[in-house]
Amino acid sequence: MTVGLNRDHTTIVLHRPRYPENIGSTARAMCNMGFTRLTVVDPGIWDEERIRRLATHAAGAVVDDIRRCDNLDEALAPFGHVVGTTARTGGQRPVIRSPEFLARELIPIAVNNPVAILFGPEDRGLTNDDLRRCHRVVNIPTQDFTSLNLAQAVMVICYCLSTAGTHDPPAATPRLAKRIELDRMYAEMTAALVRIGYLNPENPDYWMIRIRRFFNRLSLRAGEVNIIRGICRQILGYAGRTDAQ
Amino acid sequence: MTVGLNRDHTTIVLHRPRYPENIGSTARAMCNMGFTRLTVVDPGIWDEERIRRLATHAAGAVVDDIRRCDNLDEALAPFGHVVGTTARTGGQRPVIRSPEFLARELIPIAVNNPVAILFGPEDRGLTNDDLRRCHRVVNIPTQDFTSLNLAQAVMVICYCLSTAGTHDPPAATPRLAKRIELDRMYAEMTAALVRIGYLNPENPDYWMIRIRRFFNRLSLRAGEVNIIRGICRQILGYAGRTDAQ
Repeated sequence: MTVGLNRDHTTIVLHRPRYPENIGSTARAMCNMGFTRLTVVDPGIWDEERIRRLATHAAGAVVDDIRRCDNLDEALAPFGHVVGTTARTGGQRPVIRSPEFLARELIPIAVNNPVAILFGPEDRGLTNDDLRRCHRVVNIPTQDFTSLNLAQAVMVICYCLSTAGTHDPPAATPRLAKRIELDRMYAEMTAALVRIGYLNPENPDYWMIRIRRFFNRLSLRAGEVNIIRGICRQILGYAGRTDAQ
Repeated sequence: MTVGLNRDHTTIVLHRPRYPENIGSTARAMCNMGFTRLTVVDPGIWDEERIRRLATHAAGAVVDDIRRCDNLDEALAPFGHVVGTTARTGGQRPVIRSPEFLARELIPIAVNNPVAILFGPEDRGLTNDDLRRCHRVVNIPTQDFTSLNLAQAVMVICYCLSTAGTHDPPAATPRLAKRIELDRMYAEMTAALVRIGYLNPENPDYWMIRIRRFFNRLSLRAGEVNIIRGICRQILGYAGRTDAQ
């Protein structure tokens, strides 16, 4: 038996798409490949007529059910695993250069966890700050011209996710921490590390980047996040008592 | 060493595309994946401004070099191997249900032979008559909604062709007969088979369909076509002499 990706647990997230046509074409491409969950964050123009013209009648239900968010934090909050997409390779961040490999990696994760695939705006793509919210970053291999049309990029990823499958039932990954749980953990961790003098209070984010990268790579589980948050709160409580003395 | 598809020997052919935007988006998708050869047959509207807007500046050279043809026979004449695309499966004709499999099959063929990948009009796709000109027919696997946007379909095929590779140097397929050589062979064969009473002169095409399907499956080489054409001419010459007696 071939086991494929759990599509019901997989959401396409478009961050600041500029053109309604690309939202519509994305909905159609998703529908072709059996995906139905679409989140749109802070779109440049929201013109439902232009969206629906490109979505075609068949993807009308995907458009009906679009989840709209004002910002990326709100959009990613429910997800246990976030994959960013980028046309750039090289630089500090390790990038998976094969959507097929990504697909095989996601199958066990998506058995029990809501997964988001995040696409940046047409003109500039995802920023480094956006990518820091991602557990993985994937690149679509191209030749010289790296800039894919947004909906074309969604199609390639959805196609690869749709056709990937393992022949063995995947061992399900336990529930991963949702993005919002991670954000709260990082906030508490930053406060704790500043409090004990590990981080410079003037610029804590600079050092937190490394720590976040480390934890993102681990794909923390919900229970693990609870442990870390408990420790952070313990540090803050301890520091509070010490100062009071 | 990984050996991929020879892109210089691979041409995308759009048959009767209705919308200039789809021609432009096709050029951009091809450019992303390193393909440059585009043929457009009998387009509904030829509006270069609309084509170029979607192609973007990067694919301008692909648009500059578009080969335009009035009909499908002219368009396919130079190719040794023609692959049709269809959203329909089932029916008489065997359909490859995996673009990845197609890609691996094409690598040795394209070493020495010009290959065409043929896409039908947006609304109806390729007709059975169009598909009879193809050596292979490929389907992009979808979920419920089978109708891909034209340029999206080109992207999926180009992506699969672009990422496919074999780890061994492929044994090059010898030069295959070009479509125009096959068409001449079939014309001579029809004439010969009518002449000897094998085919009904009222409706020779009906029986030729089976013969064409058989020869298409074989992917005839140029030398083989010369042999068959020699035999057909021999039959016609013999019949001419017999009648004269």
